[in-house]
Amino acid sequence: MSEQPTHFDLETPALLLDEARMLRNIDRLAARTAKLGVPLRPHMKTAMSVDVARCLGWGRDLPVTVSTLAEAEAFFAAGYGDILYAVGIAPPRLPRVKALRDQGCDLTVILDNLDQARAVAQAGVPALIEIDSDGHRSGLDPADPLLVEIANTLANAGCLRGVLTHAGESYAVRGRLAHAAFAERERTAAVAAANALRQAGLPCPVVSVGSTPTAHAATDLSGVTELRAGVYMFFDLVMAGIEVCDLDDIAISVLTTVIGHQRDKGWTLIDAGWMALSRDRGTARQDVDQGYGIVCDVQGRVIPDLLVTATNQEHGIIALRPGTTGSAPDLPVGTQLRILPNHACATAAQHARYAVLPADGGPMKTWDRFGGW
Amino acid sequence: MSEQPTHFDLETPALLLDEARMLRNIDRLAARTAKLGVPLRPHMKTAMSVDVARCLGWGRDLPVTVSTLAEAEAFFAAGYGDILYAVGIAPPRLPRVKALRDQGCDLTVILDNLDQARAVAQAGVPALIEIDSDGHRSGLDPADPLLVEIANTLANAGCLRGVLTHAGESYAVRGRLAHAAFAERERTAAVAAANALRQAGLPCPVVSVGSTPTAHAATDLSGVTELRAGVYMFFDLVMAGIEVCDLDDIAISVLTTVIGHQRDKGWTLIDAGWMALSRDRGTARQDVDQGYGIVCDVQGRVIPDLLVTATNQEHGIIALRPGTTGSAPDLPVGTQLRILPNHACATAAQHARYAVLPADGGPMKTWDRFGGW
Repeated sequence: MSEQPTHFDLETPALLLDEARMLRNIDRLAARTAKLGVPLRPHMKTAMSVDVARCLGWGRDLPVTVSTLAEAEAFFAAGYGDILYAVGIAPPRLPRVKALRDQGCDLTVILDNLDQARAVAQAGVPALIEIDSDGHRSGLDPADPLLVEIANTLANAGCLRGVLTHAGESYAVRGRLAHAAFAERERTAAVAAANALRQAGLPCPVVSVGSTPTAHAATDLSGVTELRAGVYMFFDLVMAGIEVCDLDDIAISVLTTVIGHQRDKGWTLIDAGWMALSRDRGTARQDVDQGYGIVCDVQGRVIPDLLVTATNQEHGIIALRPGTTGSAPDLPVGTQLRILPNHACATAAQHARYAVLPADGGPMKTWDRFGGW
Repeated sequence: MSEQPTHFDLETPALLLDEARMLRNIDRLAARTAKLGVPLRPHMKTAMSVDVARCLGWGRDLPVTVSTLAEAEAFFAAGYGDILYAVGIAPPRLPRVKALRDQGCDLTVILDNLDQARAVAQAGVPALIEIDSDGHRSGLDPADPLLVEIANTLANAGCLRGVLTHAGESYAVRGRLAHAAFAERERTAAVAAANALRQAGLPCPVVSVGSTPTAHAATDLSGVTELRAGVYMFFDLVMAGIEVCDLDDIAISVLTTVIGHQRDKGWTLIDAGWMALSRDRGTARQDVDQGYGIVCDVQGRVIPDLLVTATNQEHGIIALRPGTTGSAPDLPVGTQLRILPNHACATAAQHARYAVLPADGGPMKTWDRFGGW
C-alpha cells in the first residue's frame, strides 16, 4: 500500500486515486480471467483515462470498451485500436464511427433493432447484437425471431460480428452466489443467441458478457469469448454493499476541507457538495444506506459511523449515521478528509483529473480524465 | 419566442438553451427587483457562463455571486470585478483569494466561525458573516453572541463588510405565500444581525439575502441592500413543482436521440443517461415526481405523461408516468427529443457548452461553460 500523507497540498475538493489499491484491483480481476480462460475487454467508462489504461498491462494491444464516441476518439488517438462502443448506436452517429474506422480504428458498435441494423449495414460498420439477459435495459431475448432477422441484415453486409450482454441487475443483489447466478444468466443468454445465429448458418465469432459483479463471481464461461468490466479498477460503496469488494479496496475518494459546524445539530460542513461527489445515491436502495459517502480521515482510514448526510452544490454536511448514538468527532475548520463515493463512475465524472498517490511512494502525479460526447 | 427547429444538426446528448425564454426569465426578475428597490447580485453557479452574464444587461458593472474560485477567476478574467464568493471560506484557499484581490478584483468571502474570521482578518480580505435564517445549512443565529465576536475580529482588521443569508429551505415549500414567508425570514434574520452589529458600534454596509423562490415572492425588503438568485435565469422542474415558474419558462433542456425500445414494457431507450441529465432527483420529494425529467418533442412541446423513468450512464429509459393508463407514443429510432431537467444547476454542470437557440431566430450559437474548482 502506498504511503498515506497526513496533508495534501491540493486545492479541495479533489479526486484522489490510490494507485496501489487500483493495481491490486486490476491484478485481482486479471487473475480471475486467467483462471477462467477468457480475455478481458475492460470498460473505460469509469476511468476515462489513458493513464489508467496504461496500468492494465497490455500496452497498445489492450482491447477496450467505451461508452461514448469521445472516449473512442481519445483512446484511438492514444494508440488503442480495438474498441467496442457499447451503447446502442444512434444512426446519426454513424458518420463519426465511419471516420474513426477510415483512420484504421477497429471500432465495433452494438444494436438491438432492425432500424439500427439497416443503417449499420448500409454504413458497413461491424456490430454485435445486444441480448437481454436480465430485463435490465436494452437487448433482445435470445429466442426472439427478430434476432436472426437482424443478424441476416448485418451478415448480408459483412457486418455481423457476434453478440453481447450485460447483467446490470447483478448490481441489485448481494453476495457471490447471487452474482454467480447472474453470471450464468449472462452466459446462457449470450450462448443461446450465438447458437441461434449459428443454427441459421450465420457467423458469431464474438460472445461478449460481463459486469463487475458477474466477472468476479463467474465459475464457468464456456462459449464466451470475452469478458467486460469497468468499475472493478476503482470499486465503490455500491460494490462494497453487495460484497464484491471491501471498503479498503476502494481506490478513489474525494479530498475535502472542513469549513464550519452547526454544533447543536452535530453537523460538520465541508467544501465537497454534489458538484464534487455527484448526486448518486446508489446505496440508498441497499441494506446499508451510506448517504452521499463514508467519511475517512486524511490518510484514508474510515471514521466509524460518519457519513455525508446531505449535499448542496458546493457544501456537504457530515453527521453521524442516522440512528447512531454518541457524538460526532470534533473536526476543526481546515481539517482535510476523504469521502468514499457511492458510485465511482458518477463521482469521477465530476472531475477533470485525478490526483494520484503513486504506488511507488513517490511524489503525487496528475492524470487527466476526458468526458463529454 | 424563438423559432423551434424540427431537427438539430447536433451530436446528442447536447445541452440546449432557449435564449428567448432565458431573456424573459431575466426580465421578470429584473422587473421585480426594480419594484422592490433592491439591486440584484446574480448567482452565476447555475449558468457558469460569461455569455449568459452578458445577457443580464449590466455590462462589466454586473456584481456577481459565485460558488467556486474557478468561477471567480473566470469572471474576473472576463472583466467582472465585483465578486462575492458565497461558500464558507476554507482558510487554505485564502492565498488564491488574495491573488485575485491583488490583481484588482473586489472579491468578498463569507464565513460563520472564529477560525475563519481570524484567518480572513490576517489575510486582510473583506467578508460577510453568514446568518442562518432557516436551519438549512450553515450560518449563525442572529442572536448568537459569537456574531459580534466574529464581527469584531473582522472589523479590527478592516474586513467587516456585512451579513448574508440564504433560505435554502424555501425550495421545500410550494406557492408564493410560503415563499414570501421564507423571504421575510431571510429579511428579518439578516436585518436583526445587521442591527446587532450596529448596536455594537460596528459597520454593516451590506445586508444580502436571496434565493430564486424568495426573490420572486418577497414583498418588502426594508433594510436589505442586495438580492441574490441564480436558477431564475433558466428555471427547472423543481422550481415549476413549487410554482415559481411554469413548464414553458424552463430555458434549458437536454437534446437526445431514440436508440431503441422494449415494446412489451412500454420503454423507449434514449442516448441521454445520468451523464447527460445528472443523477439529481430533486422532484422525488415534491408532490409530483418527474423521474429524471419530462419528455418534450424536438420543438420543446411537452409530451403528456412521458418521463425519463430510469437512467444508466449513457442510457435513459422513457416510459409513461407510473400510474398512468394508456400506451406510450411511438417514437421511432433516430427521433430527437428534449428532456426538461429536475435541477438546472446539476444538469447544466454535466455539459461543457450550451447549444443556444438564439432569440433573434438566427443560426445556433455555442456558448462555453466553465467548471471545476
